[in-house]
Amino acid sequence: MDYQQQNAYDIGELIKRKGCAILPVGAVEAHGPHLPLGTDNLLAERLAERLAELTDSLALPTLPYGQVWSLQHFPGSLSVSNEALIRILYDIGESLVRQGFRIFVMLNGHLGNMPALKDAARMLYNDHPELKVYYFFYPGTGEAISRIRETPSTHASYFHACELETSYMLYLAEEYVDMDKAIRDIPQIGLEADCTPTPWETFTSSAVLGDATLATKEKGEQVIEASLAAMTAMILGAKQRLQQRREA
Amino acid sequence: MDYQQQNAYDIGELIKRKGCAILPVGAVEAHGPHLPLGTDNLLAERLAERLAELTDSLALPTLPYGQVWSLQHFPGSLSVSNEALIRILYDIGESLVRQGFRIFVMLNGHLGNMPALKDAARMLYNDHPELKVYYFFYPGTGEAISRIRETPSTHASYFHACELETSYMLYLAEEYVDMDKAIRDIPQIGLEADCTPTPWETFTSSAVLGDATLATKEKGEQVIEASLAAMTAMILGAKQRLQQRREA
Amino acid sequence: MDYQQQNAYDIGELIKRKGCAILPVGAVEAHGPHLPLGTDNLLAERLAERLAELTDSLALPTLPYGQVWSLQHFPGSLSVSNEALIRILYDIGESLVRQGFRIFVMLNGHLGNMPALKDAARMLYNDHPELKVYYFFYPGTGEAISRIRETPSTHASYFHACELETSYMLYLAEEYVDMDKAIRDIPQIGLEADCTPTPWETFTSSAVLGDATLATKEKGEQVIEASLAAMTAMILGAKQRLQQRREA
Amino acid sequence: MDYQQQNAYDIGELIKRKGCAILPVGAVEAHGPHLPLGTDNLLAERLAERLAELTDSLALPTLPYGQVWSLQHFPGSLSVSNEALIRILYDIGESLVRQGFRIFVMLNGHLGNMPALKDAARMLYNDHPELKVYYFFYPGTGEAISRIRETPSTHASYFHACELETSYMLYLAEEYVDMDKAIRDIPQIGLEADCTPTPWETFTSSAVLGDATLATKEKGEQVIEASLAAMTAMILGAKQRLQQRREA
Amino acid sequence: MDYQQQNAYDIGELIKRKGCAILPVGAVEAHGPHLPLGTDNLLAERLAERLAELTDSLALPTLPYGQVWSLQHFPGSLSVSNEALIRILYDIGESLVRQGFRIFVMLNGHLGNMPALKDAARMLYNDHPELKVYYFFYPGTGEAISRIRETPSTHASYFHACELETSYMLYLAEEYVDMDKAIRDIPQIGLEADCTPTPWETFTSSAVLGDATLATKEKGEQVIEASLAAMTAMILGAKQRLQQRREA
Amino acid sequence: MDYQQQNAYDIGELIKRKGCAILPVGAVEAHGPHLPLGTDNLLAERLAERLAELTDSLALPTLPYGQVWSLQHFPGSLSVSNEALIRILYDIGESLVRQGFRIFVMLNGHLGNMPALKDAARMLYNDHPELKVYYFFYPGTGEAISRIRETPSTHASYFHACELETSYMLYLAEEYVDMDKAIRDIPQIGLEADCTPTPWETFTSSAVLGDATLATKEKGEQVIEASLAAMTAMILGAKQRLQQRREA
Repeated sequence: MDYQQQNAYDIGELIKRKGCAILPVGAVEAHGPHLPLGTDNLLAERLAERLAELTDSLALPTLPYGQVWSLQHFPGSLSVSNEALIRILYDIGESLVRQGFRIFVMLNGHLGNMPALKDAARMLYNDHPELKVYYFFYPGTGEAISRIRETPSTHASYFHACELETSYMLYLAEEYVDMDKAIRDIPQIGLEADCTPTPWETFTSSAVLGDATLATKEKGEQVIEASLAAMTAMILGAKQRLQQRREA
Repeated sequence: MDYQQQNAYDIGELIKRKGCAILPVGAVEAHGPHLPLGTDNLLAERLAERLAELTDSLALPTLPYGQVWSLQHFPGSLSVSNEALIRILYDIGESLVRQGFRIFVMLNGHLGNMPALKDAARMLYNDHPELKVYYFFYPGTGEAISRIRETPSTHASYFHACELETSYMLYLAEEYVDMDKAIRDIPQIGLEADCTPTPWETFTSSAVLGDATLATKEKGEQVIEASLAAMTAMILGAKQRLQQRREA
Repeated sequence: MDYQQQNAYDIGELIKRKGCAILPVGAVEAHGPHLPLGTDNLLAERLAERLAELTDSLALPTLPYGQVWSLQHFPGSLSVSNEALIRILYDIGESLVRQGFRIFVMLNGHLGNMPALKDAARMLYNDHPELKVYYFFYPGTGEAISRIRETPSTHASYFHACELETSYMLYLAEEYVDMDKAIRDIPQIGLEADCTPTPWETFTSSAVLGDATLATKEKGEQVIEASLAAMTAMILGAKQRLQQRREA
Repeated sequence: MDYQQQNAYDIGELIKRKGCAILPVGAVEAHGPHLPLGTDNLLAERLAERLAELTDSLALPTLPYGQVWSLQHFPGSLSVSNEALIRILYDIGESLVRQGFRIFVMLNGHLGNMPALKDAARMLYNDHPELKVYYFFYPGTGEAISRIRETPSTHASYFHACELETSYMLYLAEEYVDMDKAIRDIPQIGLEADCTPTPWETFTSSAVLGDATLATKEKGEQVIEASLAAMTAMILGAKQRLQQRREA
Repeated sequence: MDYQQQNAYDIGELIKRKGCAILPVGAVEAHGPHLPLGTDNLLAERLAERLAELTDSLALPTLPYGQVWSLQHFPGSLSVSNEALIRILYDIGESLVRQGFRIFVMLNGHLGNMPALKDAARMLYNDHPELKVYYFFYPGTGEAISRIRETPSTHASYFHACELETSYMLYLAEEYVDMDKAIRDIPQIGLEADCTPTPWETFTSSAVLGDATLATKEKGEQVIEASLAAMTAMILGAKQRLQQRREA
Repeated sequence: MDYQQQNAYDIGELIKRKGCAILPVGAVEAHGPHLPLGTDNLLAERLAERLAELTDSLALPTLPYGQVWSLQHFPGSLSVSNEALIRILYDIGESLVRQGFRIFVMLNGHLGNMPALKDAARMLYNDHPELKVYYFFYPGTGEAISRIRETPSTHASYFHACELETSYMLYLAEEYVDMDKAIRDIPQIGLEADCTPTPWETFTSSAVLGDATLATKEKGEQVIEASLAAMTAMILGAKQRLQQRREA
């Protein structure tokens, strides 16, 4: 259910009943020739819609600007600083507390946002202990990924515009994918990339980390549904604990 | 033309050709019983689409969180600080310079954002003089407004969920307006409201500042088109000066 | 009554009795050939003296440095940042609370200070709700101005070293005005000046926005007295409400 | 020569000729029963006037708010943070560079301001090496003080509202001193006061650190003239070096 | 070779010759009953000594305070903020550039420091591109760990006071380990711990994440030597590239 | 007693019993040809060990980076900003409060750190009044110094790598002193050095301010023991007052 489409006369009752707000957080970033710059926004937004349904929550409008340090020099990428991100997320969280929410889900579609999300969550945890804050980046997908993946991972934590992310897009936002342009581009990412500031132009010109031609809607479905199941379980658990505290 | 739907292989050429990026900036804020919380976002977004067409520019994804200090205690309002807003706008502006843009338009749908927009624009002006930055909040509409308005203004600079703004919505986003719920609520706003911090609950419980029942699509058209004309003239002027400098 | 001329043994009782502190805030800024750089300081200071008498308040020493971004490149202008201004005003406000004041009036003589004053006032409002904070920039003068003005306004909100401001100086600080040097210089200020960072050298070399030769002490008197009446009414109202709360 | 009394048409030439701006920095602070709260402002201001004459410099309007942590709980004291002070001083310094000044003198009347002045001076030194910045707090007075003082110092670096400071006031601003109220109050200030945050209410209720009844105009004259001589020598030296560099 | 034991007359030549500074960064944090609070400092320090020898570099004094949010409520833990850490690391890096170093290694012994180290490294990369910055947390140890580990990992990225870290201590700082007190404590760490702020007291009271009784010096040797080899290779590579640039 | 050598199971009881934590704060800074760069760290550390014994307190690991603005261009000096220092000291102080300490001693070995230490102490005083904070830089040594010193002081507050500091090192860390390299170098430091930013290269190339060849262990003993006695008295006094409050 879309938060910003509601009016101010009805929203109070809805907040009281649902208690949980889901904020899609993405980025504008180069994603190869076959995926749009807004890939991370689209994924976060579509996931948020589904998750809002599954958990009877309210979906907030997408925060579409993220920390894109690593790809900032690729065509089309727009990057904002950790400081900007932390501050705006904290302020949104404070507003949600004021409005009566007790669960705040940051549904993230861009790995580079994680440090800022985690910091903002900790600040809210310290200052507003009554608010449960989640930061989600495809949790609970390890098993599904190892099942569907045909190409080995190019990096322990990065995946980008590849078999995986393209599959997610085919499942959630197929109309924005141009599989005719999908390419296979498997870079060598050395150990040093984890130990020193390393803009991605050092090891890729396409920004595709793997074989996007192997992407399928079905692969996307398996990973995305696994992730939705994991997120749903956590939110419903939090709602239940909230309910119990209220009844106690 | 929607920026984030483009891919990284095509965008470089588009930026070079168009040179101007339009960022809709709005807010999530109480707008009475007949308009959605996202009214300012919807207006900014629809205006940006039109303006991008009129000026051959690229429309960025909407920044949907604004400074809503005055209405922060109204149901549904979400507010972020000036600091957060200034910082994220500045960072977006810097990214645009890096990507090759030379004109950055902040198309604002929410009056409370103006000080932050102006500050961010001045910071970019100081640090990146090669970037022309605009902050627009319905410029060039004075004449049209005085022509169409049937009720007197309740305040020198505020208008909100009233005859004017509801007319804008009827013209630009009619599907989100519920005229059956439109009300007339004309508050007395004393001189003191301009001289001391004054949350709006002091003078209104509806957040409607005027007579929304008098709103019409036609009134909206006249003001909005006047504003689009004024903005178009300024951007095309800037583009022309840019062109002249390049040729010189 | 001048605050800083009092001694520490007497001031406690005076604060208790008067309850209201008035801080003149000005700027050092180019004001044409006939007015001194300190015009905004002089106006704020003289107004504060009058207002302190009219409302039985204490006048603090003038904060003589303001935000002068627009005229910073004119000879003699000194500018401080919004951040500096906000922080020092906030700190002064906190000190006043600690000393027992319950009303804090920022009497401003320079338009460019308004965003900083408003921000500082909101921060104090949030953190010290027991302190009533006013930020005044010639409130309640609309009617008087439209009555006395002979030349049309060059801009919706700016007036500078012109018929108006020179008249204020003639009424409040005549000894600093050199009418022999007064000039008439009516710039064209386009719509763009409200939509993009626009240093004033873009449209004026004199920094006079109008016809200073038309200034008279009598015009000044009418506007200034209207403003003093409006400010006095607000402060006395606040004092009365304070009194009522104390008695309740 | 008073800077803010000049007009914008004449000031450019004056800056070019004089090259040095003197900023009095003071504080509003309890100074016992016989001296006004504005003592530090008055001393800084009067010294600045004299120093401007002696060195052919321009005297800026006084910055009358200082860091008064130690006496913030005494009646009448107003305190601003080091951060606010550093920032506003830095901004003033930057404006002076922009206006063409090459020597910036912070003439300080309040010991508590020294860390902020020193920090601001270092920041300006780093960012604007072409600007010579001085922070003066009665330099070169050691010999004169040891000659005129009749009571021993209560502390290695503090003096306050005592034989010394009262004498300075008698020499520079006699009209604000009420010697009939002068008292003798010699506190014991232990070693601990230099090693742990120690508000002055810990060791004095009068804020007088010594015997103010021994103050005389003649004592003040000797110390103040020694200080003026020392400051004058430094500024004239700086002017001379500037002149030499220009001629080279 | 210990940097701070050198004197100022010799150090210039040493910096020129060695070119690389190694900063051990650790933390003071609960590490169960058998390891000291300073475990992360000791490991970072000993590793730095070895690495300095292996790469002909200079070892700086240890920065012994780290970000310990997760265990801040455990007895003995001391935590500093990311902001403090980033700022001090950035300042140290700037000093190293000024002194002529061209390689700066942050040798980290505490996982919680990684976001701050990475941020500081990026800031230095942006502002001082001539400085190569590394942030190391046991790089290149995956193979060795999977070879020696007898108990499964309790978490994808955490290890703490367990079979692994205790082995590292036995190899590098045996005199601080009390194996008689070593315990086995294998907590269940749910998926939620990666998705919401989770102080460790939620899932452990010992702060031991595994079976410390299985630790041996030999296991430590294998992992630590693997890590030293990986770090040595990267630093020598960087030195070689530096040398090549200088010769070119 | 060394804090970081303790384990988390025992430390709680120790904190309760001892109540006081001593943090050595130093710097890495040029100290002439005969003393190491880490002189201020070594002095602070050794003093902290002694003081911990004398007062039954816990000695924390040394913070070895300080504000070295004045000597930042001397070979080997590393400098961090006041801001970094204040923030990390404040965070350490907050952690100590959380752990149950009630006395926090910053034992400083570097004069340039004093403003930061004082600021951090005041911030902790404001926010955590239950914590007694000391900042010590050789307190109570005036009498001893005037007794042992053979050469006059080159400056009212500076001493550096000279007869005094070298004597301290001979007494506390003799193994790091190379008296064969000790030199005599007595600079002229003019009044201006206290009134304008003055890097030390202006008046010395050795960074030795006096005659280091006159240093002896016995001189060091007299000053250091005087200082330890003064610090011990203050801490034991604070402990006693704490004890009394607990019993009351």
